[in-house]
Amino acid sequence: MDYSEYEHLLFERRENGVLLITINRPEVFNATNARLHWELSRVWLDISDDDETRVAVITGAGKAFSAGGDLSMLEGQLGNFKEIHAISNEAADLVYNIIDCKKPVVSAINGVAVGAGLAVALMADISIIAEDARLTDGHLRIGVGAGDHAAIIWPLLCGMAKAKYYLMTAEFVDGKEAERIGLVSRCVPTAEVLDTALEVADRLGQGSQAALRWTKRSMNNWLRQASPIFDASLAMEMLSFFDEDVVEGVAAIKEKRAPVFPSTKGS
Amino acid sequence: MDYSEYEHLLFERRENGVLLITINRPEVFNATNARLHWELSRVWLDISDDDETRVAVITGAGKAFSAGGDLSMLEGQLGNFKEIHAISNEAADLVYNIIDCKKPVVSAINGVAVGAGLAVALMADISIIAEDARLTDGHLRIGVGAGDHAAIIWPLLCGMAKAKYYLMTAEFVDGKEAERIGLVSRCVPTAEVLDTALEVADRLGQGSQAALRWTKRSMNNWLRQASPIFDASLAMEMLSFFDEDVVEGVAAIKEKRAPVFPSTKGS
Amino acid sequence: MDYSEYEHLLFERRENGVLLITINRPEVFNATNARLHWELSRVWLDISDDDETRVAVITGAGKAFSAGGDLSMLEGQLGNFKEIHAISNEAADLVYNIIDCKKPVVSAINGVAVGAGLAVALMADISIIAEDARLTDGHLRIGVGAGDHAAIIWPLLCGMAKAKYYLMTAEFVDGKEAERIGLVSRCVPTAEVLDTALEVADRLGQGSQAALRWTKRSMNNWLRQASPIFDASLAMEMLSFFDEDVVEGVAAIKEKRAPVFPSTKGS
Amino acid sequence: MDYSEYEHLLFERRENGVLLITINRPEVFNATNARLHWELSRVWLDISDDDETRVAVITGAGKAFSAGGDLSMLEGQLGNFKEIHAISNEAADLVYNIIDCKKPVVSAINGVAVGAGLAVALMADISIIAEDARLTDGHLRIGVGAGDHAAIIWPLLCGMAKAKYYLMTAEFVDGKEAERIGLVSRCVPTAEVLDTALEVADRLGQGSQAALRWTKRSMNNWLRQASPIFDASLAMEMLSFFDEDVVEGVAAIKEKRAPVFPSTKGS
Amino acid sequence: MDYSEYEHLLFERRENGVLLITINRPEVFNATNARLHWELSRVWLDISDDDETRVAVITGAGKAFSAGGDLSMLEGQLGNFKEIHAISNEAADLVYNIIDCKKPVVSAINGVAVGAGLAVALMADISIIAEDARLTDGHLRIGVGAGDHAAIIWPLLCGMAKAKYYLMTAEFVDGKEAERIGLVSRCVPTAEVLDTALEVADRLGQGSQAALRWTKRSMNNWLRQASPIFDASLAMEMLSFFDEDVVEGVAAIKEKRAPVFPSTKGS
Amino acid sequence: MDYSEYEHLLFERRENGVLLITINRPEVFNATNARLHWELSRVWLDISDDDETRVAVITGAGKAFSAGGDLSMLEGQLGNFKEIHAISNEAADLVYNIIDCKKPVVSAINGVAVGAGLAVALMADISIIAEDARLTDGHLRIGVGAGDHAAIIWPLLCGMAKAKYYLMTAEFVDGKEAERIGLVSRCVPTAEVLDTALEVADRLGQGSQAALRWTKRSMNNWLRQASPIFDASLAMEMLSFFDEDVVEGVAAIKEKRAPVFPSTKGS
Repeated sequence: MDYSEYEHLLFERRENGVLLITINRPEVFNATNARLHWELSRVWLDISDDDETRVAVITGAGKAFSAGGDLSMLEGQLGNFKEIHAISNEAADLVYNIIDCKKPVVSAINGVAVGAGLAVALMADISIIAEDARLTDGHLRIGVGAGDHAAIIWPLLCGMAKAKYYLMTAEFVDGKEAERIGLVSRCVPTAEVLDTALEVADRLGQGSQAALRWTKRSMNNWLRQASPIFDASLAMEMLSFFDEDVVEGVAAIKEKRAPVFPSTKGS
Repeated sequence: MDYSEYEHLLFERRENGVLLITINRPEVFNATNARLHWELSRVWLDISDDDETRVAVITGAGKAFSAGGDLSMLEGQLGNFKEIHAISNEAADLVYNIIDCKKPVVSAINGVAVGAGLAVALMADISIIAEDARLTDGHLRIGVGAGDHAAIIWPLLCGMAKAKYYLMTAEFVDGKEAERIGLVSRCVPTAEVLDTALEVADRLGQGSQAALRWTKRSMNNWLRQASPIFDASLAMEMLSFFDEDVVEGVAAIKEKRAPVFPSTKGS
Repeated sequence: MDYSEYEHLLFERRENGVLLITINRPEVFNATNARLHWELSRVWLDISDDDETRVAVITGAGKAFSAGGDLSMLEGQLGNFKEIHAISNEAADLVYNIIDCKKPVVSAINGVAVGAGLAVALMADISIIAEDARLTDGHLRIGVGAGDHAAIIWPLLCGMAKAKYYLMTAEFVDGKEAERIGLVSRCVPTAEVLDTALEVADRLGQGSQAALRWTKRSMNNWLRQASPIFDASLAMEMLSFFDEDVVEGVAAIKEKRAPVFPSTKGS
Repeated sequence: MDYSEYEHLLFERRENGVLLITINRPEVFNATNARLHWELSRVWLDISDDDETRVAVITGAGKAFSAGGDLSMLEGQLGNFKEIHAISNEAADLVYNIIDCKKPVVSAINGVAVGAGLAVALMADISIIAEDARLTDGHLRIGVGAGDHAAIIWPLLCGMAKAKYYLMTAEFVDGKEAERIGLVSRCVPTAEVLDTALEVADRLGQGSQAALRWTKRSMNNWLRQASPIFDASLAMEMLSFFDEDVVEGVAAIKEKRAPVFPSTKGS
Repeated sequence: MDYSEYEHLLFERRENGVLLITINRPEVFNATNARLHWELSRVWLDISDDDETRVAVITGAGKAFSAGGDLSMLEGQLGNFKEIHAISNEAADLVYNIIDCKKPVVSAINGVAVGAGLAVALMADISIIAEDARLTDGHLRIGVGAGDHAAIIWPLLCGMAKAKYYLMTAEFVDGKEAERIGLVSRCVPTAEVLDTALEVADRLGQGSQAALRWTKRSMNNWLRQASPIFDASLAMEMLSFFDEDVVEGVAAIKEKRAPVFPSTKGS
Repeated sequence: MDYSEYEHLLFERRENGVLLITINRPEVFNATNARLHWELSRVWLDISDDDETRVAVITGAGKAFSAGGDLSMLEGQLGNFKEIHAISNEAADLVYNIIDCKKPVVSAINGVAVGAGLAVALMADISIIAEDARLTDGHLRIGVGAGDHAAIIWPLLCGMAKAKYYLMTAEFVDGKEAERIGLVSRCVPTAEVLDTALEVADRLGQGSQAALRWTKRSMNNWLRQASPIFDASLAMEMLSFFDEDVVEGVAAIKEKRAPVFPSTKGS
C-alpha cells in the first residue's frame, strides 16, 4: 500500500503489523481543512486493503489530536447546496469507513479533539486518552445540530443522559471524566498515551487476525443497525448549514466573542 | 400560551425563553393524583406550541420532586378495565410527549422522585439531581411490573445490570449513585440543584434553537425505535392491575407493613 | 421438579422459593466439559417449569465460578463440522434459555469466570461479584471470535468502548472494575458474595411474581431484538474453529506459552 | 422420540425423515381445547430433539385444519388473572417454539383455520393451502385484540394494508386470495393439499439438513427482531380478556347472533 | 368535539360513531394549501379526543382525493429556512398523528392522490381505492427526495422493488394495480368507493373498540420502530428545497413543460 | 473513470449519463469465476466516483444474465479457511456496495440468474425481468445455507412465505411469477427487456440527481438496519462450506445427478 498521496497524514510502520498514523497540521492544532477531512474519510479503505497492516493507531502531531474544522472550510459551506451535498457524503464516509475498516483502529487522543477529529477519536475501536486531553462535540457552538458521529455511538458509549448533556451544552470533557462515563476505553497520564496505544496495538497485532476482525464486525452490528439514526442526524446537521444561526456562530468564533443566535430572538 | 388551566403546576417565565414549571402539591410530597398525572402528560404539548418558551425546567415544590401516585388513584384502578385502559393511554402520553416535545426539557430533581414523577425526572433531556435526592421506580413495591418509562430508557442510561437490579428490587438510589451509574446527567449539592438547572437551561435558551431541537430529535430516535419495547412493558404493567398481588401491595403501603403477595404462595 | 439427572450441578432449596445451584467441578475450577456445558444450557428450562422455584441463584463450588472450557472439549471441536454444528446450537441455548427463563436468575460470582461460565454469570438478571473475582471473555486468547454472549449484551452493560477493549484484548477485569463499568449489578467483599446474592434472591422470592417476571421479560426485549447480532457473532465464532489459529491457541495454552498465531504471519 | 403422551395429535413417520402430524379432533373441526393448545405449543420442542425427524408436516383431520378455540376454554379465561397469565405464556410458546424449531415445518391447510390453528398454519415455514380453505384471525369477532401471531408476521407476509384490513374486519380469506396476497406459500386444489405438502416435505427431507436449518434460522431473524412487537400485541390481547366486550363476544357466538359490544355505547 | 375551525375539511356524523371527513377544495382538485396542510396534520388529534367518533373516513370532494401541494405553497418554501423548518415539523405531524390516532382511519380514495394527499390516503389503517383513481408520490417530479410518508410505509405495503420503482420514476399507479401490489387494502368500482369505505367503517364502529385500537397500535409498532428511517427521509427531502433543481422543477410544472434539472448537467 | 481493468464486464456510455454494463462470459452463461465475482463486487465503487455516470444498467451478454458460480471456483473453497474468509468479505462487498452505490442501479434480467448473479439482479434498485427469464437462489442445491443477499432483502420483496418457499426448495421462478410476488419491479416480453431498462434509466438520468440519490439512500435504510441479519446468514453460509454435504452437492452437479447428502443419513 502506497500512502504517499496523503498530505496531512504521516505513516510509520511498527512491529507486528502496527501502522502509526499521525495527523500532521500541528501549526493549526491539526484542524481539518477540506483535504485533511477527505484524507480522514478515505484512509480506512487503504488500511483495509493494506496487506502489511494488521492494526492502525491514529494520533495527532504536537499538543492536539485535532481541533475541529478550519473556519474557512466552514464558511465555504454555508448555504452552498453543492458543498453541503458533497460534505454530507464525506462525513458519512468518515464514520462508516472506520466502522467497516477490516482492521482494528486504536486512537491515541493526545490532546484536544473536536468535530471530525472527535469523530475519528471515538469511532476508533479502542480509544486511549490523555488525562488532560479535552473533548467536545462542538456542533452546537456554531449553531449546527450534532450529527457526524454522535447520534450513532454516544448512547452506546456513555448513555443517553450524559450524551444529551454534553452534546446540547457543548461543554468540554477531560480525559478522566471521558473514561469515567464510558466515552473512551482507557485514560492514562499524558506522557504515556501514545506508548499505551502502541502497546495495545502491538498486542492486537500478535492476536488471531480473523478472530479480531470478526469480533469487531460482530460488535459493530450495533452501529450498522443504527444507520437510519445516523442518516437522520446527519441530514439535520446539513439543514443547519442553511440557517442564519450558523453564519452568526462562525462569525462569533472568528471574532472570539459569544454568539447571539438569530433563532433566540423568537422561540 | 395560557397555562391558567393547570391546577397543580406553577409556571414562571425567566430570561432567555426559560419556563420554570413547579409541581405544586408539597403537602403530599407532590404525589400525582389523577389531575396532576393528566397535567404531567399534557403540558409538553403546550410547551411545544408556546412561542415564548425555548427551554422548560421542571422541579418540585418543597422537599420532594414527586413521591409517586396517590394511593386513592391507585385503588380506583384496581381491576377496573375502563380506568386501566384510560391510564394506559395517559402513561404512554406522559412518556412520548416529553420525547416529542420540540423544546429541550431540564429536570431539577430536588428531592424524592417515584413513579410518574420519576418518569418525568428521567425522560427529561437533561437531569440535574440533588446529592441527597432519592429515586426509585417503585412499581415492584406494589406488585406491578415496571412499565411506565423504565423499559424504554434505563438500559440506555445505566446499562442492563444496574437497570434490572434497581427495577427488580425497587431499592432507592441516591443522587450521587444515580449520577455514577448514568441515570442522570449531573449531581450537585442539594442547595444548588435548581440554580444549576436554571443555569444550564439559560445557556440552552441562548443556543441555536433549530440545532438544539434537531439534536434532541436525533438522539431520541433511539427511544422512538424502542417504542414496541415500551408498549410491551406498559401493557404488562396494566395486566398487573388485575392481579390480586396489587391489592395486597396497595393495602400493605396503606397499613405501613410489608406486603405478603398472594403469588408467593405458589411459584 | 427432579434435578437428579444433573451431574455437575448441585441444587439446594432455600426459603421463599429460592433455588441455589452450585457448579460443582471444583477440582478443575468448575471448567465446563461437554456434560456441564449441556447442563448449563438446559437447567433454565427446568427452572421455568419448577413450581417450587421462584428465583434461582447460581454460584461455583470452591474458589472459582467457572474457569472456561476444558481443553479436551475444545480440541474435540477443532475442524469438526458436526461437533461445531452441535455446539453452536448449545451455545445459543445457553444464552437464550437464561433470557427466556421465566424466573429471575441471580449470579453469585465468587471467583474467576471465563467462557461459558462468564456467559452464565453475565446473562443472569442480577449479578453479584466478589471484589477479587476476575472475569475475561477469553475467546481471543485461543484465537476465536468473541461470540457466545458478548455481542448481545456487553454494549448494553458497559458500553461499546469498554466492551471492545476487553473483548479484543481479552484482559481480565476484577470485581470492582466490573461493577464500575456496569458489567455487573453489584460488587461486595468476597466473603459476602453468596450471602448477598441469597439475600437479594430472598427479597425477590417475596416479591410479586407476575410483576417480577414481566419486568424481566420487558427488559429482555432489548436482548431479543438483538438476536440477529447474537446469531452473527456466534456463527463467526464457529467459523474460527476451522482456522489454524485456534489449533495454535489451544496448543499454546496446554504448553503454557504465548501463542504465535499463523494469521500474524501475513496481514 | 416418544409422542405417545399426545392426546389430540396423531403422528405418522414417512420416508426421508418426514413426520406427519394430524390435529385430531375432527368432531369439533379440530378446535383447540386447553389440552390441544398445550400440545400445539409443545410439540415443536420434541421435534427439535427427534433424531428421526428432519421435516414436520402438520394438517387437520377431516374437513378443517383447526377452527379456533373452544368456547368453554375461552369462558374459563374471562377475567381470570391466573388463567390469563398462564395462557399468555402458552400463546408465546406456540409462536416462538415454531420459530425456534430446528427442523422446517410445512403446514397443509386442508380447511378452515382460525385462532391458534391459524397461528400454526401461518407460522409454519412453508404453507400449502387448499383453494377452498378459509382463514380468519378471528380475535376481533370476540372482542379481543389481534395478538397471538399476527403482529409478528402478517406485515412480512401480506403487507400492512392487507394485514390491517383482515385483522380489523376479521373477514375470511379463501385459499386463492391468501396466496395472492402472500399470506401462504402456495395454493392448490383441495384434493391435492396434503400430497403437495408431503411432496415438498419429502424434497426438504432429501436436502442438506444444516443448510436448511440455517436458512430457516437466518430468515427467522426478521421475526426474532420483532419480538417486542409480538410481546406488546400479546399483552394487549390479554388485557382484552378483562374487558366486558369479550363476555358479550363469547355470548354472541354461543347464541349465534351478532354481538352488541358494550364499548360501542360510548366512543 | 367542535370541528368548526376547519376551513377546508367538512365533517358529517354517521351512525355507529363513524365520522366522514371530506377534503373540500374541489375547484383545485383538493390540492393542499398551507391551511389545508395544517388541517390534515391536526385533525387526527381532535378525532382521538372526540368521544362521539369511533372511526374516521376521509375522502375528497368532487373527482379528486387530493392533487398534491399548491405551487404557490411550494414556491414559498424554496430556499427559505424558517418555512422549511416549520413544514418539516408539520409533515412529520401529518404522518405520526395518523399513526398515533387512537381511532381507526379509513380512506376512500375516490380519485387522484398526490403528495400530502397521498400520505393521508396510504397512512390510513384501511384504504379503499376507486378502480380509476391514480396515485403518485410525485416528489421526484419537482426534484425533491421522496420523504413525507413513503420511506416509513411503502416497503411494508408493496415491497422494495415496487416501492423504489414508483418512487424513483414518479409514475402513476391506478387503483387496480395499487391493490395488486399491496399499496391499498381494496379496490372497487369508482361509484362504490365511498359506500364501501363507509360500510367497512360502520362495521368497525360496531366492533369492540379497545380491541380495535389495540390491534391498530400493535400493528403500528412496525411503523414506530421505523421512525429513524422516516426522520432521515424527511430531512433529506427538506435539504432538496435548497437545491436549484427544485426551482426548475416547480417552474416546469407551472409552465407545463418537462424540467431540465441543473443537476443533470454534471453527474 | 477508467473501466479498462475489467475483464469480464463491458461498458458502454449512453445519453443522459446512463452507463450500460454487460456481464460478458456468454460461453458459460456469464457464470462467475473468481475474477468476475470480484469485478461484480467492485464496480459499484467506481460508478459512485464516476462523474460521467448518473445511472447504471447491468445486463448479461447472450441468453443468460448470470448462471451462478463456476464449479471450479466452488471447489477451491471447500473446507479452505483462507478462501472462505476472503470470499465472505467479497460476498458482503457485493451486496453492500450496490446498497451504498451513490447512483441508482437498474438490472435488465435478460435470462437465467443464479447465485451471485441473482444477488446483483435483485439488489439493483430497479429490476426489469424478461418473461421467460428464470431465477433461483440455488444455495440449497449444493448444500449451502442461503446467505449472500436473500436474508437481507427477500422478506421485503416478496414476503416471508414466498421467500422461505423458494429459498428452501431452490425452485426456479420465472419472470411473470417473480413480478407477481414482488421479487422484481417489472416484467416485460423478453425482446424488450434491455430497451425497457434503458428507457427507465434514461428517465432517471434526466431526473433530479440529489433527489434520486436521497430517495435511494432513504429506502435503503431498511436494508442497512437489517445488516446483522445479513451478517448472520452470510456466516452460516460460510460454515456450510466446511460441511461434507457441499462436497456431495458440487459433485452431483458435475456429474449431473441428484445429490445424496450425507446429512440425510442421520437427522
